[in-house]
Amino acid sequence: MKLSVGIDIGGTNTAFGLVDESGRIVARGNISTRNNTDFQDYVNQVSDGIRQLLGQTNGAELLGIGIGAANGNYFSGCIENAANLPWKGLVKIVEAFENQFGVPVFLTNDANAAAIGEMVYGGAKGMTDFIEITLGTGLGSGIVTGGKMLYGHDGFAGECGHVIVERGGRDCGCGRKGCLETYVSATGVVRTATELLAKRNIDSELRSIPNSELTALKVSQAASRGDAIAKEVFEFTGEMLGRALADFVAITSPQAIFLFGGLAKAGEILFEPVRRSMEANMLNIFKNKTQVLPSQLGDDAAILGSAALVSFNQ
Amino acid sequence: MKLSVGIDIGGTNTAFGLVDESGRIVARGNISTRNNTDFQDYVNQVSDGIRQLLGQTNGAELLGIGIGAANGNYFSGCIENAANLPWKGLVKIVEAFENQFGVPVFLTNDANAAAIGEMVYGGAKGMTDFIEITLGTGLGSGIVTGGKMLYGHDGFAGECGHVIVERGGRDCGCGRKGCLETYVSATGVVRTATELLAKRNIDSELRSIPNSELTALKVSQAASRGDAIAKEVFEFTGEMLGRALADFVAITSPQAIFLFGGLAKAGEILFEPVRRSMEANMLNIFKNKTQVLPSQLGDDAAILGSAALVSFNQ
Repeated sequence: MKLSVGIDIGGTNTAFGLVDESGRIVARGNISTRNNTDFQDYVNQVSDGIRQLLGQTNGAELLGIGIGAANGNYFSGCIENAANLPWKGLVKIVEAFENQFGVPVFLTNDANAAAIGEMVYGGAKGMTDFIEITLGTGLGSGIVTGGKMLYGHDGFAGECGHVIVERGGRDCGCGRKGCLETYVSATGVVRTATELLAKRNIDSELRSIPNSELTALKVSQAASRGDAIAKEVFEFTGEMLGRALADFVAITSPQAIFLFGGLAKAGEILFEPVRRSMEANMLNIFKNKTQVLPSQLGDDAAILGSAALVSFNQ
Repeated sequence: MKLSVGIDIGGTNTAFGLVDESGRIVARGNISTRNNTDFQDYVNQVSDGIRQLLGQTNGAELLGIGIGAANGNYFSGCIENAANLPWKGLVKIVEAFENQFGVPVFLTNDANAAAIGEMVYGGAKGMTDFIEITLGTGLGSGIVTGGKMLYGHDGFAGECGHVIVERGGRDCGCGRKGCLETYVSATGVVRTATELLAKRNIDSELRSIPNSELTALKVSQAASRGDAIAKEVFEFTGEMLGRALADFVAITSPQAIFLFGGLAKAGEILFEPVRRSMEANMLNIFKNKTQVLPSQLGDDAAILGSAALVSFNQ
């Protein structure tokens, strides 16, 4: 049996798994990221965990290791200045795991890993040009053109969440104003809900929830129960995303755009206005050509996407 | 001697030339595009012209033919519904020239041809990730990522002139509003000048020119003589382009952006505000990494860029 290892490094936990060539996770483990402030200790622990899993398989051949992490740079093999991880500066993570296993190790950021996972195991099988949009706390993106990941000259391409969609708009964590992710993300949905609770003078079940406890999931549940403000929140979110997607299509002309992450699970209440707004804002030559689809990667997306880096690069 | 042919199809004229491997045009010719409404006649005439030029060289080997034309589609080999050319619908131009010469023939649009010319003969030699912005009546763009032309799934990627930069903004020829090219192009400069003549209550030499005779060149000349409104026009144009470039960098992370075409010849009066606005609007991780440079392609850019398609594809 030939296996790849996928390692998904999140701010809280690190999940890893052995993935066979059909895209099935045959064994998995996880450790805390947050509590492992010493990087070498962390690498040793993850490596021990992987060796333990490999020991349970019957003479499996290890093809390589793929790592997905915020600010993971494909070219440098380093995690670079990640705000939400315990290790500061440039972290030479590819080198660290090569030293442990002596197999090829690949690193990319989480959104790119999701895009590669979509291409190798998900809804983008056989596609050469598509965009993966990851909707979480922020908005990430991985762009595939001509069958290749678009990395740019420094490995940082695909920061679609920081395209400015509203001059002088909402404050963004990046220090600027009006970035797409301040409107279109789980956080953006909560901000829109808060804004509409001020703007509209109608009843809403969202009014009984303290602002600090409001989540995109609660807004989506309220919308599915017919709450007018909650419905307007998704209408607005879809409008904003659709506009931005029309611009992205003009630049990279993808066959499909996949929406991935918790917010994408809201379903048609999000997808319908996104498609409507994208087509309404689309340049003629691109109209009715680009599909907007839910990701076909399930809960194991992060491990699968990271593991897919290995086969994608061979 | 090994030669490529470059054919540049403009709305008025078609220029063609024999280009040697160092990027020198060794012979050239041109015929009217506009007056040749019969496509097969047109192909015959261009082909006769090329054969005549080849006859003057001493036993040259013809490597291939590159064609740059508005709406030229690399994948289909057809000019598709070009508004400013005399042939309607899908025009199988690659096939037509293959039949004439029996050598490889490549087609792309004019902005992509300029990008490839920049990479093969111009300022982008050795670069793998850059954007070529062509500033003429409109704004075209050719995007190179990872050393390859970004075509998208249908060959139409790189329509950066139709990214919407101002919701509900200026009417665009594409039928929508607020497209980048309505602000940043030779036409955009004239519109901005007209707008500022209405908005500002100060003297300007532009006030003595009828609106229909106002050109970007006249505005740029007035600016170089210190005309306050003309200077503000370029300040505004640079601000608008810089904002858009910051967004393009977030998406494709190029090493450099080249400005090509008549308007780019305005020099620092344009480049200075473009750079300033781009950096002011740039996401932190991209700051001070992307150069904004004048194209190094001269007046022969269109022929050279088209001819470069041949070596780029071999």
